[in-house]
Parts: sequence; C-alpha cells; structure tokens
Amino acid sequence: MSAAPRITGFDTYDIRFPTSGELDGSDAMNPDPDYSAAYVVLGTDAGDGAEGHGFAFTIGRGNDVQVAAIEALRHHVLGLRVDEVCADPGLVSRSLTGDSQLRWLGPEKGVTHMAVGAVVNAVWDLAARRAGKPLWKLLADADPEWLVSQVDFRYITDALTPDEALALLRAGREGRREREAVLLEHGYPAYTTSPGWLGYSDEKLARLAGEAVADGFTQIKLKVGADLADDIRRCRTARAAIGDGVRMAVDANQRWDVGEAIAWTRALAEFDPYWVEEPTSPDDVLGHAAVRAAVAPVKVATGEHVQNRIVFKQLLQAGAVDILQIDAARVGGVNENLAILLLAARFGVPVCPHAGGVGLCELVQHLSMFDYVALSGTTRDRVIEYVGHLHEHFLDPVVIRRGRYAAPAAPGFSAAMAPESIARYTFPHGEYWAARAAAAEEAPA
Amino acid sequence: MSAAPRITGFDTYDIRFPTSGELDGSDAMNPDPDYSAAYVVLGTDAGDGAEGHGFAFTIGRGNDVQVAAIEALRHHVLGLRVDEVCADPGLVSRSLTGDSQLRWLGPEKGVTHMAVGAVVNAVWDLAARRAGKPLWKLLADADPEWLVSQVDFRYITDALTPDEALALLRAGREGRREREAVLLEHGYPAYTTSPGWLGYSDEKLARLAGEAVADGFTQIKLKVGADLADDIRRCRTARAAIGDGVRMAVDANQRWDVGEAIAWTRALAEFDPYWVEEPTSPDDVLGHAAVRAAVAPVKVATGEHVQNRIVFKQLLQAGAVDILQIDAARVGGVNENLAILLLAARFGVPVCPHAGGVGLCELVQHLSMFDYVALSGTTRDRVIEYVGHLHEHFLDPVVIRRGRYAAPAAPGFSAAMAPESIARYTFPHGEYWAARAAAAEEAPA
Repeated sequence: MSAAPRITGFDTYDIRFPTSGELDGSDAMNPDPDYSAAYVVLGTDAGDGAEGHGFAFTIGRGNDVQVAAIEALRHHVLGLRVDEVCADPGLVSRSLTGDSQLRWLGPEKGVTHMAVGAVVNAVWDLAARRAGKPLWKLLADADPEWLVSQVDFRYITDALTPDEALALLRAGREGRREREAVLLEHGYPAYTTSPGWLGYSDEKLARLAGEAVADGFTQIKLKVGADLADDIRRCRTARAAIGDGVRMAVDANQRWDVGEAIAWTRALAEFDPYWVEEPTSPDDVLGHAAVRAAVAPVKVATGEHVQNRIVFKQLLQAGAVDILQIDAARVGGVNENLAILLLAARFGVPVCPHAGGVGLCELVQHLSMFDYVALSGTTRDRVIEYVGHLHEHFLDPVVIRRGRYAAPAAPGFSAAMAPESIARYTFPHGEYWAARAAAAEEAPA
Repeated sequence: MSAAPRITGFDTYDIRFPTSGELDGSDAMNPDPDYSAAYVVLGTDAGDGAEGHGFAFTIGRGNDVQVAAIEALRHHVLGLRVDEVCADPGLVSRSLTGDSQLRWLGPEKGVTHMAVGAVVNAVWDLAARRAGKPLWKLLADADPEWLVSQVDFRYITDALTPDEALALLRAGREGRREREAVLLEHGYPAYTTSPGWLGYSDEKLARLAGEAVADGFTQIKLKVGADLADDIRRCRTARAAIGDGVRMAVDANQRWDVGEAIAWTRALAEFDPYWVEEPTSPDDVLGHAAVRAAVAPVKVATGEHVQNRIVFKQLLQAGAVDILQIDAARVGGVNENLAILLLAARFGVPVCPHAGGVGLCELVQHLSMFDYVALSGTTRDRVIEYVGHLHEHFLDPVVIRRGRYAAPAAPGFSAAMAPESIARYTFPHGEYWAARAAAAEEAPA
C-alpha cells in the first residue's frame, strides 16, 4: 500500500485577457481594464486526476505581482496530505493567514490576502471534486459544527460568536431539502451589468437594457460617476428602455467623496435607482453610514473591494449598508466568505454578490446557493451579479436561464479554466500576447 | 546646452537582516521577524550625484513580493524630468496611486500601497538632497499653499477640506523660527521599545529598562499579549525598574479581539500603563472606539499598520484613539503622511510615530520635526519611538541624546543605506545569505 497522497503540484499562471479593446468593464474608476487572473493549480499524487483550481482577479498591470504573492505561499501547501486538507480546508486557511512574516504585508488585505484567497479557493475546489459534489452542495450538506470550525472568528467575536454562528446554521438547515429542490428547478436570481458600462453609447445601452428585460432579468445596473449630465441622460435612457417594473441599480465604483456621493445620488433619485453601489472608498465605513442616512430610500451597497471580514463587520455594526456584496476572490477565500455570510445573516442584511471579471460568476454562485439552501434560507431581495464576458474560457461555465443562475451540477468550485485558454492568454509569452507583441514590432513607428 | 535632466535609474533590492536569531523585534504576533527592506534607488542624469532612496519595511518572507510591487511602478517614474518631480512630488504620488489597473490590487493598501510609499519617499529624498536641506526643514520652510497642493484630499474632505488644511498650516507657521531653534538645540523627545521585546528574559528587561531611564528616556514600551500571567510579571518588573515618574506603554500588536483587549488592559491597569497600543485589528475603527471607551484612563494608540488616510480619518471621527501613530513606510509616503498629520492637527490628537524596523526611525523623525516646527507647534505628549537596531547600516543614522532625537542636518530623508550593507544583506545572493546557505548545505542533515 502506498503512502497517503500529498499535494505535489503548485503551478501558477499570469493570464490576461485584452478586454480593454472593447471597453467591456469600463467604469468611472477603471477606464480600460484588461481582465486578468493570477491563477494557481494544485496537483496531487492521488492518481484520481483531481486538481484544485483557484485564482485572484485583477484588471491587468500588477497581475505579475499577484502571481508572486501566490508563489510566496507555495511552501505552506506543498507536501500537505490531501485527505487532511480536504477534510479541513480551514487548516490551510489558518496556516496561510497565520504566516507572521507575510502577515506584515497586510494584514489580511490587498495582494497578499487575495493570494490567500486564491489558494484557499483552490483547496475547496479540490475538496469538492474529490467529494464528487459542486461546492454549494458540499457546503449545504455539511454539519453546522464543521462549518463553524471552518470560520476564523478572530476580530469578529464582538459581533458574532461561534455559538451564535452555530445557532444560525442549525436554524438554516430547516427546510433545506425543499429549498434545494427549488434551487435545482428554478436556479438563483441574477441581475445584469452587461448593458451599463460607461464606455458604451446610449444606443448600445438602450438596446442591451431592453434585451436584458426580454431575457428575463428583473434588475440591471448602470455605471455612473464620471459626469453628472451624462449620468442623468443615461439613467433616463435606461429607465425608458426597461420601464418602471424593473429595478435599476447605479454603481459609482468609489468615484466620490462623501458629500459628492450624497449630492450625486440625490440628483439621480428621480430615476428611482434601487441601490447606489460603492459611492465612496471601500475603506470608509463611517462614510458609507453617512451616505446611507442621507440618500434613503435609495439603498447603499458595497463589498467588492472590501478587504476582509473585519471591515464587513463594521459596515454591519454601523448600519452603513442595505446590501452586502461579497466577492469570491477578494477576501481570504471560502472560509472568510463563510464568516461574512454568517455576519450578514446575524444582522439580517441581504447579500447580493459582486461578479463579472474573470470567473467571478462561476465562483460566487456557489456561495449564494449555499446561503439560500442552508443559511439565510431565502432569495428575497437577493440577486447575483451577472456579466456575460469570458465564460467561454471555463470548463464549467455558468448557465443563465430566464435571468437566473442554474445550479452547477459538476463537482468542484467551477474554477477551472480551459487549458487552451490558459496557454493562449498567458502573459507575456502565450500565443495571443506574443502575436500582439510581434505585430507591434512590425508596425511602423 | 544639454536637455533637462531626467530620472534614468530605478534599481531595486531585496535586503534582509537576520534579526530573528536574537529575538530582537519579537512580539505577540511576530515571534521571529527578519527585518527587511524592499529598497529602491532613483538615479538621474543631472550629473550632481544626487540619488533618491526609499524603501518599504517588511519582516522577511514576502520582501520579494514587495520588491515586485515596486518594480511594477518603474514605468511611471523613469524618464520624468528631475526638476518637475522635485518641484512637485505630488505629481508622482498622484501618478502612482492613479494607475487604475494597479489600484485594483488595493486600493491604497497593502503591498501595492507600500510600494507607492517607497517610491514617493525616494522622490522626496531626491528633492531634499537637491534642495540641500534635510527633509524636515524643506517641509517646514515650504509655503502652506504648496504643502496643501501636495495632499490628496480624495475621501477625506468630509473631515478636512483644503481650505481648513491651509488655515492649519498658516497658523502653524507662527513662531516657527523660534521652534526651529529649540529643535536644533534640544532635539525631539523619544521613547524606547528596546527593553520590552517579548522574547527577552525578565533580567534583560529590568536591566534594559533601568538603562533606558539612565539614558534620559521618559517613556518605555513593553510588548504584551501572549500570556497574561507573564505580562503581569513583566509589567511589575519594568515598573519597579523605572519607578513611578516614567511612562510605560504596552503594545499588544493586534493580538486581541475587542472583549479580550478590554479585559486584558484592565488586568494590567494597576501598573499604570500610559497607552495600550494596537489592542486589536488595525482595520477595526469601531473596535478601537469600544476599547477606548472601556479602558480609560489608559490611552489607546494605533497606526503602524493603518493602511491609509481614510482609516486614520475614521479613527479620528469615531473618537477611537488618544494617540495617532504614523509610520513613514506603510502609507503612500510623505504626501499621505502630510494628510494624516493635518487630520491629527484638525482633531487635536497627538502624533507619536511608530519606528524601529529597518530605517523607520531615520525616516519618521523628519515628519515629527516638521509637525513641531510648522504645524502642531508642540511636542507636548508627543514622542517618537526609538529602537536601537540596524542604524549602523544607514549613511545618516539617527542620533539620540538624552532620550531625544537630534535634528538631522544632512540633506535628504536620511533614507540611504550603506552600499556595503546593501551588498552584504541582499537576499539570497548577498555575501551574508550566500554564506549561510553554504553553511547549511555543509552541515549534517
């Protein structure tokens, strides 16, 4: 009999897609993103072919720095026993966030924390593949005690204790079989940002907004914040295209100071925005609280750039948000997102995840579906963002039907990218980027 | 006549000192730091030999990631005109923090923001050298209008407007000649952390604490937070060694949750700690406010790990701290620290900088001295941390006399490390690390 299988592979890739050419993803802070992934693949010697895929999402320059940060975690993961890791991904999570020397570079924020998230998510992908379940179902089937053991409560016990978390999870189990059946039949509600990028013409906006409603979406989102007159015109255009019965959120992508956020949101109020997203710095808990108090009944949403559970905790404690937007690849992976989902449940605030980018829809759907089946127990006022880009590069891409995410059936976290996409878009030597560099050299100066 | 000089050099170094061997720098969160610098040198073709040196401080692993993040800024700096950069370092600061693709990796936090700080500080070093002044004097002599132009007010205008900043700086100029004379004669008050590292024996603690008082220090600091019984014994030992007339701060280095911070601090209250430092996560504004309300009259101090001006702003708005601890190399460099000093002045909260590490004393003294001469106008309840390690590697090391920092006289930001130190401690191929690796190979397995 051979020795227990170990993690034997830790391969990283700097993958960049040239999205800036089409202004897909353009907003008031990010005029020309090249959607990118700092990607990691965990291999094992188990002989079952199962790998763990994970990634951090970036928008171009700096993706190499993000890969370097993932590489800095290699020694924590290589050689671990596969059965132990898959039985307790929290072991890896604690080992990575607990590296005191690396911790200095955060703590638990920015490049190093996103690196932890990429590796931790790869571990969960591996665990779910080996369990033969999509991640949402692995989580929904898990014992509440085990789920609590996966959460790092450091710095959040003043808002949520392990006992409180356990009580929430136990209560969340009631009726889960029925909800799982509903999920499998109807999927999870989505909203779409595809019509609303700032770089699109009014005509394209109106056309895409109308198509979104025809496709069954009950909420769309517009990017705002660069120019008020433009925003008023675009909101009017979009509202006319979708009618009054469809929700329209606006997203400022952190463009404003507090006072400006209040004035600008009020100026758009006549178009009945459902929420204003990222009105100011993601670090500004008190600023969000001030904005929320001033712009009601317009709701305040944030989270895609919120660095960790500690800031999410404060947003809830301060009554700073109506809607919490988790991101699957910004914080420390599934384990920290469990903490954040539990905090949201504790405060009764709906979670509407951020997605889009590269593979963020693929990942985050699992977290919302778990939340519906086995924690909050509801999809009321909850929607997952949907953006229609780059899904073709994933082996298990999201499926949207009538404005809803279909529940993934394949084992894993839907994180794996197609090998040919990885090869083609690896920067700077993949086929796409090498050809582009060669063409630039040949062009006249 | 030749063209205007440009920035033509951008050299980076991964420099690591093996401090973990002596337990210098050991605390409850950081048991074995190898104090390190991700170091950058800006060169020019001006022919005057002036360079700009800057660095981020790390504690070992990950220093390579930090260097990679500095490298990602290279294209923003190379080729800039030296005269324009030195006349307006804010140009560089805005260009670096404004890179929308790199911004995604923060924004303005962690590895990428510390990289900005390293480069921005190098620019200020260059500017001060070319002006023939130590940085503190360059700042103290500057027009208030120009200083205001160096501050990025984004996300802080709800607490401090440019007009308010200008008024503070104009008022701060009154009497500055007299204060400059006082500074040059007496220096700036310091406190010392050298006795209080967690890895030291009680005997070493008592001896070093007594020596600190004999050397003229009026405040020392002890690391706490690993074990309460040990802390009680160590506080008793230190208090006995220094007597009642000397201030004794305690520093938990983020070890506690909010409730634990309150209970632990109360348990040490009998030894009359002057402040409790980093009682919990540096991200937890509301947590610090709760701790402060519960442990008074013990003061609450934090800041060395506070990521940017936005979190400092909230610490002040929430009444969460009695003492603000800036760090020269954590935030986005001199420009952002000007914003933070102005915020502290606006709220009337004293600034007692964090220092130690590699070169942090050398840098941060300039900021406090500027604050004294031309902004807050006082050293009352203000002290700069002093730790006696690694100064020998700097070309213009700090000078401590009778427990006070002597004002630097040499032009620049005191940031330059000796070339032989850079060569010897560059990781992994410098002489020290290469020899250590060779010795490890030769040792029996």
